[in-house]
Amino acid sequence: MDQEEAVTAAVLVIGDEILSGRTKDKNIGFIAEYLTSIGIDLKEVRVVPDEEDEIVAAVNALRVRYTYLFTTGGIGPTHDDITADSIAKAFGVGISEDERAIEEMLTRVSRADLTPARLRMARIPHGADLVRNAVSSAPGFRLDNVIVMAGVPAIMQSMMDYVTPTLRTGKRMLSVSLRADAREGDVAEPFGLLAKAYPDVMMGSYPFNDEHGYNTNLVLRSRDPDRLAAAKAEVEAMLAALPGRAGKIP
Amino acid sequence: MDQEEAVTAAVLVIGDEILSGRTKDKNIGFIAEYLTSIGIDLKEVRVVPDEEDEIVAAVNALRVRYTYLFTTGGIGPTHDDITADSIAKAFGVGISEDERAIEEMLTRVSRADLTPARLRMARIPHGADLVRNAVSSAPGFRLDNVIVMAGVPAIMQSMMDYVTPTLRTGKRMLSVSLRADAREGDVAEPFGLLAKAYPDVMMGSYPFNDEHGYNTNLVLRSRDPDRLAAAKAEVEAMLAALPGRAGKIP
Repeated sequence: MDQEEAVTAAVLVIGDEILSGRTKDKNIGFIAEYLTSIGIDLKEVRVVPDEEDEIVAAVNALRVRYTYLFTTGGIGPTHDDITADSIAKAFGVGISEDERAIEEMLTRVSRADLTPARLRMARIPHGADLVRNAVSSAPGFRLDNVIVMAGVPAIMQSMMDYVTPTLRTGKRMLSVSLRADAREGDVAEPFGLLAKAYPDVMMGSYPFNDEHGYNTNLVLRSRDPDRLAAAKAEVEAMLAALPGRAGKIP
Repeated sequence: MDQEEAVTAAVLVIGDEILSGRTKDKNIGFIAEYLTSIGIDLKEVRVVPDEEDEIVAAVNALRVRYTYLFTTGGIGPTHDDITADSIAKAFGVGISEDERAIEEMLTRVSRADLTPARLRMARIPHGADLVRNAVSSAPGFRLDNVIVMAGVPAIMQSMMDYVTPTLRTGKRMLSVSLRADAREGDVAEPFGLLAKAYPDVMMGSYPFNDEHGYNTNLVLRSRDPDRLAAAKAEVEAMLAALPGRAGKIP
């Protein structure tokens, strides 16, 4: 594992129900936090409908750009579950019912219950490794750098846990959060100067308001603990020199 | 307004804080549901970091493909708020402090408080119309088919309400949701046949589980009330003929 090289990722959420608003996605935030915690930088997210051309185009755009691509959704038993076939098409490989997947499913389903619809869930692109589903047995899979997971949050989370030990991870991103006790518009200039002075420390500014009015959280992020500590000290000195005034204007 | 032609949209969420997992996005689900309710089909969502090249590339990919592009985030006063400049670059137009925007801000901020940082929020690409911010006054804007909104949910929502009357909307999508009282794997085959028989009615299948075990919601969507009613009747008849059995296998 190269501790210095950044490891990147994209997430592709597949599903009409997210785009219609019927289902509120909970996976993006979970995966984002999860990847950050293991030292992988999430760089892009896309949500596309259950349409083969859209899935293939997004998979091929994202898998070449980032170290890993994680997909969620579209691996169930119904006609609109077309993720596995779309992944096979994106890679130009065949796909068929996979004996390993059937075996995993048989730990939870009797052979009599393995209807043609359920057997769709055992369709795995050739060359893929299975990703175990600890919740309901029908597996996801990993093909090259693409990890294909279920859309149901509990199942997706079990798949993330399963696949994580196999991932290359980077040096973990460290972060500190400072409450400015100032309006974003008042802190913006000195904070911007410090951001320029520390190009290797990412600095973000997040307004919020509470019962005292508008206020701002400043977040510093770096892989280098020394640089992070130095930047933090300078930001704290900058804040101490500001008139501390939460107000009604952002 | 052409009631027959589908009106489409994409959403572009801009912000490192979403990709790091620090902030959980609440805007995608809100906008998805909002657009569906006014007859606009959300077809794609992307989340990109606060990096000009990424924003410009995403804006130019999405604005030519869909009727509208809605962006959220990156229009505050700090150095990492680069959405307005990135939009100007994507369109190849100039950008400068806008008198109309300053006037709106002066309804909430004294002229003495209009620091250079706050004036950044008045930077509007040339040719854009303002989108009013009913919460904290610093406006969003609309340039051609791109609507640029704040990332703070309450502000974004006020901007959606402001801009909606100016949007072309399509014939509203109607939907019905049916509880299958069957496992998805058991309903998948007959449901798939009905989906083929009604190519003009979108049919989706969403597994869930409760204290009785796995179960499935079926959702039918169409712009034609008669076709929707016909499809619904056939799906109900199909469900009535199924052995109604919620079980432990999806």
